[in-house]
Amino acid sequence: MVKNTNIRISLPAVCFVWQIAMIILFGVFIRYNEESDSHWIETRKKNNISTDLENDFYYRYPSFQDVHVMIFVGFGFLMTFLKRYSFGSVGFNFPIAAFGIQWALLMQGWFHSFDKEDLKIKIGVENLINADFCVAGCLIAYGACLGKVSPVQLMVLTLFGVTLYAVEEYIILDLLHVRDAGGSMVIHTFGAYYGLTISWVLYRPFLSQSNHLQRSVYHSDVFAMIGTLFLWMFWPSFNSAIADHGDGQHRAAINTYLSLAASVLTTFALSSLSKKYGKLDMVHIQNATLAGGVAMGTASEFMITPYGSLIVGFCSGIVSTVGYVFLTPLMEKTLKIQDTCGVHNLHAMPGVIGGIVGAVTAACASESVYGHEGLINMFGFEGKVNRTASVQGGYQAAGIFVAIAFGLVGGALVGGILKLPIWGDPTDSNCFDDDIYWEVPEEEDENIPAFGHQNMHRVERTPDAHHRSHV
Amino acid sequence: MVKNTNIRISLPAVCFVWQIAMIILFGVFIRYNEESDSHWIETRKKNNISTDLENDFYYRYPSFQDVHVMIFVGFGFLMTFLKRYSFGSVGFNFPIAAFGIQWALLMQGWFHSFDKEDLKIKIGVENLINADFCVAGCLIAYGACLGKVSPVQLMVLTLFGVTLYAVEEYIILDLLHVRDAGGSMVIHTFGAYYGLTISWVLYRPFLSQSNHLQRSVYHSDVFAMIGTLFLWMFWPSFNSAIADHGDGQHRAAINTYLSLAASVLTTFALSSLSKKYGKLDMVHIQNATLAGGVAMGTASEFMITPYGSLIVGFCSGIVSTVGYVFLTPLMEKTLKIQDTCGVHNLHAMPGVIGGIVGAVTAACASESVYGHEGLINMFGFEGKVNRTASVQGGYQAAGIFVAIAFGLVGGALVGGILKLPIWGDPTDSNCFDDDIYWEVPEEEDENIPAFGHQNMHRVERTPDAHHRSHV
Amino acid sequence: MVKNTNIRISLPAVCFVWQIAMIILFGVFIRYNEESDSHWIETRKKNNISTDLENDFYYRYPSFQDVHVMIFVGFGFLMTFLKRYSFGSVGFNFPIAAFGIQWALLMQGWFHSFDKEDLKIKIGVENLINADFCVAGCLIAYGACLGKVSPVQLMVLTLFGVTLYAVEEYIILDLLHVRDAGGSMVIHTFGAYYGLTISWVLYRPFLSQSNHLQRSVYHSDVFAMIGTLFLWMFWPSFNSAIADHGDGQHRAAINTYLSLAASVLTTFALSSLSKKYGKLDMVHIQNATLAGGVAMGTASEFMITPYGSLIVGFCSGIVSTVGYVFLTPLMEKTLKIQDTCGVHNLHAMPGVIGGIVGAVTAACASESVYGHEGLINMFGFEGKVNRTASVQGGYQAAGIFVAIAFGLVGGALVGGILKLPIWGDPTDSNCFDDDIYWEVPEEEDENIPAFGHQNMHRVERTPDAHHRSHV
Repeated sequence: MVKNTNIRISLPAVCFVWQIAMIILFGVFIRYNEESDSHWIETRKKNNISTDLENDFYYRYPSFQDVHVMIFVGFGFLMTFLKRYSFGSVGFNFPIAAFGIQWALLMQGWFHSFDKEDLKIKIGVENLINADFCVAGCLIAYGACLGKVSPVQLMVLTLFGVTLYAVEEYIILDLLHVRDAGGSMVIHTFGAYYGLTISWVLYRPFLSQSNHLQRSVYHSDVFAMIGTLFLWMFWPSFNSAIADHGDGQHRAAINTYLSLAASVLTTFALSSLSKKYGKLDMVHIQNATLAGGVAMGTASEFMITPYGSLIVGFCSGIVSTVGYVFLTPLMEKTLKIQDTCGVHNLHAMPGVIGGIVGAVTAACASESVYGHEGLINMFGFEGKVNRTASVQGGYQAAGIFVAIAFGLVGGALVGGILKLPIWGDPTDSNCFDDDIYWEVPEEEDENIPAFGHQNMHRVERTPDAHHRSHV
Repeated sequence: MVKNTNIRISLPAVCFVWQIAMIILFGVFIRYNEESDSHWIETRKKNNISTDLENDFYYRYPSFQDVHVMIFVGFGFLMTFLKRYSFGSVGFNFPIAAFGIQWALLMQGWFHSFDKEDLKIKIGVENLINADFCVAGCLIAYGACLGKVSPVQLMVLTLFGVTLYAVEEYIILDLLHVRDAGGSMVIHTFGAYYGLTISWVLYRPFLSQSNHLQRSVYHSDVFAMIGTLFLWMFWPSFNSAIADHGDGQHRAAINTYLSLAASVLTTFALSSLSKKYGKLDMVHIQNATLAGGVAMGTASEFMITPYGSLIVGFCSGIVSTVGYVFLTPLMEKTLKIQDTCGVHNLHAMPGVIGGIVGAVTAACASESVYGHEGLINMFGFEGKVNRTASVQGGYQAAGIFVAIAFGLVGGALVGGILKLPIWGDPTDSNCFDDDIYWEVPEEEDENIPAFGHQNMHRVERTPDAHHRSHV
Repeated sequence: MVKNTNIRISLPAVCFVWQIAMIILFGVFIRYNEESDSHWIETRKKNNISTDLENDFYYRYPSFQDVHVMIFVGFGFLMTFLKRYSFGSVGFNFPIAAFGIQWALLMQGWFHSFDKEDLKIKIGVENLINADFCVAGCLIAYGACLGKVSPVQLMVLTLFGVTLYAVEEYIILDLLHVRDAGGSMVIHTFGAYYGLTISWVLYRPFLSQSNHLQRSVYHSDVFAMIGTLFLWMFWPSFNSAIADHGDGQHRAAINTYLSLAASVLTTFALSSLSKKYGKLDMVHIQNATLAGGVAMGTASEFMITPYGSLIVGFCSGIVSTVGYVFLTPLMEKTLKIQDTCGVHNLHAMPGVIGGIVGAVTAACASESVYGHEGLINMFGFEGKVNRTASVQGGYQAAGIFVAIAFGLVGGALVGGILKLPIWGDPTDSNCFDDDIYWEVPEEEDENIPAFGHQNMHRVERTPDAHHRSHV
């Protein structure tokens, strides 16, 4: 089958129109908040605040930059493991995130920071972090579809993904009054099921025709380790970025640091166990080592204790690696879900674990552990919300189901939209190939005359039959 | 023509002599400032300052480290896109910056932080940031000359570049009293025209002989994305690093974040538009996506509003990509300017846009927007400088011309010096080849006997005729 | 000789058992400290501390993240220079560090943060930094053994390395009351001699059989530069991370920044001098440029003056490069020490220089330079320790010998343990080959039928004779 992958009209159109829409909507709705507005100097003086250091910027900016690195370099490079899809991995990650953060500032702003007096959204550094978080959900979904969709489809996936995220987040955090500082449910569980459902709707029966490209080469695996390590190292910042000032952020960083360390050890153990001669598999190392961060997303700011964090990392590393070994092939075969990056193992299962851990930890919270004021601050048991810890645990558990439901239903709807034959996606035999959407440079040795057969190779590698018919 | 590229005497001599000169000059002139000097503990007590947190270190160090990453990894890796000049890109970037920051501490110190009482320059974290900024100008200039100059020439380029920068900066910031926190004019415009003029003076008529090396390979393009992304992610820190404490830094980060996001979208749009089948070009993605950061350099701390920032990014992404598509080839053909990295598109044009945006925004500043005190603080309208906002706008515009003038005249002079036949630069046919200045490892497959023709290839690839004649 | 490199039982066993031991020990001993415990809110109120900003988290977390990057990306990628050991470099670095930080929290906790009242170790961000520091010692040791040991051996090396480190650190910092903020002695000198002695005990007489793999390829050298640069850029954070709040951290960052800059220049000078035609050697650039950071480890927080820092960097860059040119081959030939990464040149010699510089600087300390209170704070001359500066200098010098002694004796013991034939280490002809412990992807061009001789090549490259005999 010959498909049209020409995106010369659709991609520029989407980028231009949406960016112009962002400008207009920002013009109507978005302003600086009081900590980033120059007027604040005078307000501050009136309130006798004596120092610029109290600006939230200094509490959160270092964490924000770490999160920013995770979104753009972490997710981007983690996906470069495929031999001929490094441009697409790190390259499409870029506009998804760049568009997504703008749209997230609006969507999250309407739900969370909307000032009903002057009908404006006031933004500061915490909004930037939340926008990055929101985009993480879409990038996880991209991981499930990696190599099988066009950049136009990815923009659509992001538009709806951010929208769904903002609603789901509003329900979980505001209506159910659930805590989820690092987003085990809100980000990871939702993002993974959203992407997996889309991948299921877009099932490609003849994807094995692209098998020779759905694998890594030596250097692409090393590139992917850049992504893995920046995600791994900065995850304590991710889970603590919007936690409470002071001991809240401090504790969230410690818990995540420990959980991640434990999941590295169990990942290496199971990876070695799963192979002949105990050889390690880069896929496991690149991914399952991160499960401890995902699973610590909800409980990171809770008093889960240091050894509790290690236990969470221990289990999630095991579950994630076992997922890569057994579940991914099974899911493709029986459920027709083609999950390129294995987001079910890295985000869905550890995300659900994180939600459960959070619910249990919350249910066990007590004044003797948190202190009287600490307990109130942590779960926001003030004024309107009057709950016991165990009731809070129940609400936390309910959050998991909301996240899964939004992922499944949203993914089905968006998958349906993306199935329309207008988005320029590749044929089954052209998946995982940068040559479809990128000007790929000639091979390293191409220019050497003595290397004649290399040219043959090029001819074979990039059949541009798919270019020949244009709508 | 056979040229001598032996730098075994000149490079060590320059490195040694200049480093010793730095030590002597530092010994005579440079001391810790009161926030990094141990004595400060007592001064502080006298002044009743109650906390170490007020040390400027905690306001600026996280931003400083981000800027540091941009200088060494950002610029270094951005230039690794060439197939056989990755060592030179990331490797020469290193000593340029390492020497440049030392010389900048002195030059900028004499102009800005010179204590006339004890004839010393007192340094702290803000000086380190400014030194990194100054070096950025020289690294931009290197981008225009990449692959065509020797490391000794680069050291000379840096020596004069830093000197010119310090004078230009003094005129623009101190004499004209212009604001330029992220250096659209002072860094980018100056650096780009400085490098372009040098490249024009050093025009190589037969550079096409190196054509086979002036291109990328698959993995070198991925390496370059490391540079792109670290520049992109940390640009909010760059533009906010030396902005005013509190809302100034906060706002500068937000504005830059938004502007960069918008330029990603327009870059993807135009890159796709410019090619057959809408395929994306890595050169555009690696570079033009950053234009939003350059163009937001001057106005980042102003009350330009979030949608204003998006508009700036929108336009600069377009201008920069169009520059790569049309201007670079035109400039080489008609103006004889060979601009390896396209710094005209990434730094010169967006830098000038940034200067204009800054001038217009300043001219429109009002107390109703900034607050009474905010306006005074922002533009330093205190005591000696008594200007209206519109007059300030005029001065801001004048700053652009000073930066361009310094770039052109300085570049012509330094270009003349670099044209002397004593610097060990390569012949036209040996450009863009690491083999001239580096011990390059054998090819990956060299050691395999069966691969006989590879050896032929090596013989062809690295003709070391240029070594044969020594002065 | 055929050796069994099957680690399918030993590696999982070690990972599981040790991780479970960590969980149990953490359960018994480790709790949050008062700045990361939720209870702290009430304690704080009682003490009238008005702001969360005084939480140590905000003083140290940005530096902690930089150190974290150095440990995982810095050390990991620095070692990727070998053509076929990138997986092992960045991959084994990962579990060493992930296990090591847990064990270090316990070991260092028992010695430094043990609360005798409730028999608990209370941890906060400073403990996380110290755990990262401790692991750095083991990663340096790994550098000496790179490519010649199995992952199980590395875990054993780490278990004992962390233990030795904690004891040595206790003797030097607590008993001798020596200052060593950046660990020239405690981390670098100890780590290097520990690794070198192990390498000496494990001497491989026929290692030349792996010669064809003990070299770099073009892209592996570029990957290694990622490690170099992140180490270089973040070293100011490393040396200032646990320095005193305020001017102490500020000064440590400035001194390290300057020292590193100087060592770049002298490294380039000597690298060029050491080769024909003045060509630069990537090994020198990747390593010796960092010597300035190592050598500034002890004195970074002292009032060594900016030009003093430049002199330290100047000398250590020279010593380190000369080490790579002359000493490493000599040591292998005469002393039978095979030092894969040249840690003797990068860590041992600059570490000893750092210790000496620290001793001399301490001996010269005076109230006129530090201020009365500054001097007391810097060297802890309060209450129990009543020393003059020159006596302190003597103790500082003694610290060097303690570090060396622990390295040599500890290395000999651990080397003896690692010599047992049960750890699954490779034969001399299988060193430096990822294929022993990793599932290595097929070559890039493997899948191209026309490329028949590539297959021959594969067969030759990975003789899996070593798999054939299993215990």
